[in-house]
Amino acid sequence: MEKTCIDALPLTMNSSEKQETVCIFGTGDFGRSLGLKMLQCGYSVVFGSRNPQKTTLLPSGAEVLSYSEAAKKSGIIIIAIHREHYDFLTELTEVLNGKILVDISNNLKINQYPESNAEYLAHLVPGAHVVKAFNTISAWALQSGALDASRQVFVCGNDSKAKQRVMDIVRNLGLTPMDQGSLMAAKEIEKYPLQLFPMWRFPFYLSAVLCVFLFFYCVIRDVIYPYVYEKKDNTFRMAISIPNRIFPITALTLLALVYLPGVIAAILQLYRGTKYRRFPDWLDHWMLCRKQLGLVALGFAFLHVLYTLVIPIRYYVRWRLGNLTVTQAILKKENPFSTSSAWLSDSYVALGILGFFLFVLLGITSLPSVSNAVNWREFRFVQSKLGYLTLILCTAHTLVYGGKRFLSPSNLRWYLPAAYVLGLIIPCTVLVIKFVLIMPCVDNTLTRIRQGWERNSKH
Amino acid sequence: MEKTCIDALPLTMNSSEKQETVCIFGTGDFGRSLGLKMLQCGYSVVFGSRNPQKTTLLPSGAEVLSYSEAAKKSGIIIIAIHREHYDFLTELTEVLNGKILVDISNNLKINQYPESNAEYLAHLVPGAHVVKAFNTISAWALQSGALDASRQVFVCGNDSKAKQRVMDIVRNLGLTPMDQGSLMAAKEIEKYPLQLFPMWRFPFYLSAVLCVFLFFYCVIRDVIYPYVYEKKDNTFRMAISIPNRIFPITALTLLALVYLPGVIAAILQLYRGTKYRRFPDWLDHWMLCRKQLGLVALGFAFLHVLYTLVIPIRYYVRWRLGNLTVTQAILKKENPFSTSSAWLSDSYVALGILGFFLFVLLGITSLPSVSNAVNWREFRFVQSKLGYLTLILCTAHTLVYGGKRFLSPSNLRWYLPAAYVLGLIIPCTVLVIKFVLIMPCVDNTLTRIRQGWERNSKH
Amino acid sequence: MEKTCIDALPLTMNSSEKQETVCIFGTGDFGRSLGLKMLQCGYSVVFGSRNPQKTTLLPSGAEVLSYSEAAKKSGIIIIAIHREHYDFLTELTEVLNGKILVDISNNLKINQYPESNAEYLAHLVPGAHVVKAFNTISAWALQSGALDASRQVFVCGNDSKAKQRVMDIVRNLGLTPMDQGSLMAAKEIEKYPLQLFPMWRFPFYLSAVLCVFLFFYCVIRDVIYPYVYEKKDNTFRMAISIPNRIFPITALTLLALVYLPGVIAAILQLYRGTKYRRFPDWLDHWMLCRKQLGLVALGFAFLHVLYTLVIPIRYYVRWRLGNLTVTQAILKKENPFSTSSAWLSDSYVALGILGFFLFVLLGITSLPSVSNAVNWREFRFVQSKLGYLTLILCTAHTLVYGGKRFLSPSNLRWYLPAAYVLGLIIPCTVLVIKFVLIMPCVDNTLTRIRQGWERNSKH
Repeated sequence: MEKTCIDALPLTMNSSEKQETVCIFGTGDFGRSLGLKMLQCGYSVVFGSRNPQKTTLLPSGAEVLSYSEAAKKSGIIIIAIHREHYDFLTELTEVLNGKILVDISNNLKINQYPESNAEYLAHLVPGAHVVKAFNTISAWALQSGALDASRQVFVCGNDSKAKQRVMDIVRNLGLTPMDQGSLMAAKEIEKYPLQLFPMWRFPFYLSAVLCVFLFFYCVIRDVIYPYVYEKKDNTFRMAISIPNRIFPITALTLLALVYLPGVIAAILQLYRGTKYRRFPDWLDHWMLCRKQLGLVALGFAFLHVLYTLVIPIRYYVRWRLGNLTVTQAILKKENPFSTSSAWLSDSYVALGILGFFLFVLLGITSLPSVSNAVNWREFRFVQSKLGYLTLILCTAHTLVYGGKRFLSPSNLRWYLPAAYVLGLIIPCTVLVIKFVLIMPCVDNTLTRIRQGWERNSKH
Repeated sequence: MEKTCIDALPLTMNSSEKQETVCIFGTGDFGRSLGLKMLQCGYSVVFGSRNPQKTTLLPSGAEVLSYSEAAKKSGIIIIAIHREHYDFLTELTEVLNGKILVDISNNLKINQYPESNAEYLAHLVPGAHVVKAFNTISAWALQSGALDASRQVFVCGNDSKAKQRVMDIVRNLGLTPMDQGSLMAAKEIEKYPLQLFPMWRFPFYLSAVLCVFLFFYCVIRDVIYPYVYEKKDNTFRMAISIPNRIFPITALTLLALVYLPGVIAAILQLYRGTKYRRFPDWLDHWMLCRKQLGLVALGFAFLHVLYTLVIPIRYYVRWRLGNLTVTQAILKKENPFSTSSAWLSDSYVALGILGFFLFVLLGITSLPSVSNAVNWREFRFVQSKLGYLTLILCTAHTLVYGGKRFLSPSNLRWYLPAAYVLGLIIPCTVLVIKFVLIMPCVDNTLTRIRQGWERNSKH
Repeated sequence: MEKTCIDALPLTMNSSEKQETVCIFGTGDFGRSLGLKMLQCGYSVVFGSRNPQKTTLLPSGAEVLSYSEAAKKSGIIIIAIHREHYDFLTELTEVLNGKILVDISNNLKINQYPESNAEYLAHLVPGAHVVKAFNTISAWALQSGALDASRQVFVCGNDSKAKQRVMDIVRNLGLTPMDQGSLMAAKEIEKYPLQLFPMWRFPFYLSAVLCVFLFFYCVIRDVIYPYVYEKKDNTFRMAISIPNRIFPITALTLLALVYLPGVIAAILQLYRGTKYRRFPDWLDHWMLCRKQLGLVALGFAFLHVLYTLVIPIRYYVRWRLGNLTVTQAILKKENPFSTSSAWLSDSYVALGILGFFLFVLLGITSLPSVSNAVNWREFRFVQSKLGYLTLILCTAHTLVYGGKRFLSPSNLRWYLPAAYVLGLIIPCTVLVIKFVLIMPCVDNTLTRIRQGWERNSKH
């Protein structure tokens, strides 16, 4: 329910409920927005300011006082001030003693300061109960009520009563408080709004590098080579034909890279004979962004499907097929039907469709609300069993696509094999190693290691 | 976890836990369903009724007493009675004093009464703690356990202890309580189950009007015009060809309308020189349903993609292409290849695919569970940067589709340009204005205004 | 926010916060993983072990003591021991008195024991407050931080303070506690991680049986029959043509089976004249897995769409169309245009696209996060109104596909009608009965019955 209290009239409030007063230090944009929202939701608001007389633009209904006077009016004080100006609070330690200070600040970049702003505030005013909150909400969103991105307000603090009171306010403003534990969590909470898809960066750059490399590879084989040897202008292939080679190869390679770290980890554990040694950092990081790798792969697979399905409506394809038929008609000879070609063409298409279908299923189960609704056993079943099946189907799709021409020397141009051959290297490697790993003798050892057994242990 | 307590046996309950008694006033359908569910979850249930002797059909195990006797048995009384019959409660004020009254009522239409039912109840029985809850759950769903729609129970009330106790009951029934704050929220909570996609109404009607207008426009140009001048029966075009003109134009127009209000708002702010004046109501409402507009646009784009991909399997297309080839074969002349046509055809298709791909990405990020998992910066990046890129790609797709024939007089029929020309008006306008707005001189002023600066302010 | 506390340094903790000590009984894999995680999150951890001297591999920083000594150090004791070894706890009843025991155990199969492990534990140590938690989290996920599947920890217990303390720990570990009520819920919570898509089993087996049956039916009609009578090798049809007959029929039948139980229930209620008698068990179970039936149907519909869209790029289709044109060109005769064929072909395709579009919409609204965001009225509108519209469109699509050849005797092979005729039986039956049920006279009776009226009642 998109509950906002913009239309609520504080005057019609149930008289049995006393209006709570909240104090806001700072009259900047966010302070004003928060104050307005609180007034609309039935709170009394007092602003604390350096120059209470000169402050303008405040929401009507709010009082403005000096810092110390404002602080006396309420048990909860929201610090809507930049961290650099926190110093003056040390002069107010007496009046702030025992009060709840809500730190809503954000920094300009990650790790700007050694400790989080909230912990710094708690250090400056040791007698107060500091609660971190509201830093993930934007001033504009508060004003307009357009809280599409997220209504979640992460809250943390060492005093659980103080935290509870702040969470009640959050709820009354129509937002969703998320208790994140003690003030130690403030560092994470402050980092959060500054991130821009951190887990997606590696998959994104990796796929960009792959795409650029494959693009030049295909341009050399499909545009420059025919131009040099046959003087044919094939540049128009750069719009659809070449992307439709790049996308499936990138998709298949990224999908294989989702399963490669698991395979490497298994080999490492077998080699070390124990699971109680940390993996190298690169492997840990790789394992943690497998979901993102898989979803980027799904994106490329989706593009490949669309690029393939439009083939028959392309001018070039219609022209080529039309001319072929005209030539045949002029020569008055019909094309004989080849059952093996029909089998190859149909099975390569069918394998691709089934692979894409399972891939889409995998993508749907990685939606947060879906993966929250399955248990660990189901998740493992989908991501591991169905995942490998997808990889097998997509690899088979590419192998059958190659069909008879696979690695035939006539297909080399300037000693370069067709691009899809490159795309098969990593998937086939992963599948072969995995096949070895699931052989009973290897699998048993691995299972014992994963259950805690150690080869070199004295037990 | 789809936890229901239907199979739980209250008799095997841990003896250390005392069975809580809940009283239900009213023996109608919802009262009975709730009572049955509570019995199944281990509660004692006492029904209060006008005629305790004549009441039938109650779940076995429940007691039936007169109102006042039933009320004495429990601290929590669920009022499963229509608001019109609340009057009799005034006679029971003494016995209800200090008790928790749970208002579960719904009205037949929105704003039927000036105040919410729960507030009316609190007014009638001032000594009781009124909590609003359960009104969003259907009796049928409670009985069958098929709570697919929503397990969320919105709860509000002025007394936090009373609210807490009701939320515990909600949880014990396997439902999810959502604390909505004070009793003031009851009005919103009561409005909620009566709504039927309120935010979708404007986008839906707008797109319906657009579709109908474009349908007649296309029928005139593509069916009536050829019939009048060439006596050709083109009516079959109404099944696929004409919808496949209507859908992309509607999609593109709606997508542009998602970004138009932001552009208008920027112009207004620049003109006024301040951000501290409210936008007109129509603009506010428009801005709040942008997400819905975008999703309707995505629906039309999806239809356009499907209608386009089936082109080659249509009888008409196969017939036309076949006949074209037959004619050429009879004339024994091959069709020369035009590189520029290949470029045009391929790039217009590629632009369309990439635009649709980004559009689908935008759609996925607007799923509630996905948008909850991104922070504000990421959401703005996706919805604003990727959104404009989508608009640019889709507009370019339409422009290249027009290609050489764009606005050529030979393409006018009864002075009517081709339909896609109409579809370009709003997107091009939005893109041109946006382009002006992001020029440094304009952008700087706008940024300052959005940070709180005012042109006519004395500061 | 993917908050983990792996990087948090317990030493930099706010000094005002006392480090809480947690005791873990058992030094197996899960105990160690949980201990490590807790140490990383700033807890003191004491392990209780049978042989404290011989225990190795524990995370550094943790203490190991005998069971009774370890128990004395903390108010919260996590029992990371298999249920079979719980007996020794009876010897510790004294020292465990008043403490919180967290049962994290899982069994190997569902219903292995008459009562849940947590209730058994509460029975063994009656003086302690038993809380069930953590059983849905895997040791590996805890260690690696890769908690994609689910961060939800289901918590239940009879003592609400004990439960609250455990939920605080859960939150501090970066997980999401879900209060499931009293200890009675432990049975459900313990069943949960052992399930493998229980609601999907019936739809899955049903569709498998349907697919196998239809496969053999189609092989007989399309492969064996032509081989016997025309010696044609049609085996390549098994890759795409035959699946593309099986999938739409399965999809349509499953979709009709989603609506059939509702229709049967209505007939039962009309026949019995009351809604206060339970439906037979098979009907109840059927009604509860309608969502899963529908989603499986959507999967088959999706496959049907992909298989249909690739038709023009198949070798067989290109060969057939090319040869057809060549033959015409050789005979020098153009194919006359048939408006009725164009109408039939286009309208059958358009009906299919619209049906699939609505089907996808239904699928999207059944995503947990979307269905949580709609109210009961909206959910009913989508699933019932739009659902029936989808069924009507898809049935019409199949009927028009049949077109003129529908049931014509020339289409029988070995007295077997075309497969799509079989697919129409259930959908048409459902639609006809539904049509009867919504006729005013029947509908009025049904509505009264559903509002609680009884035909044979004395009222």
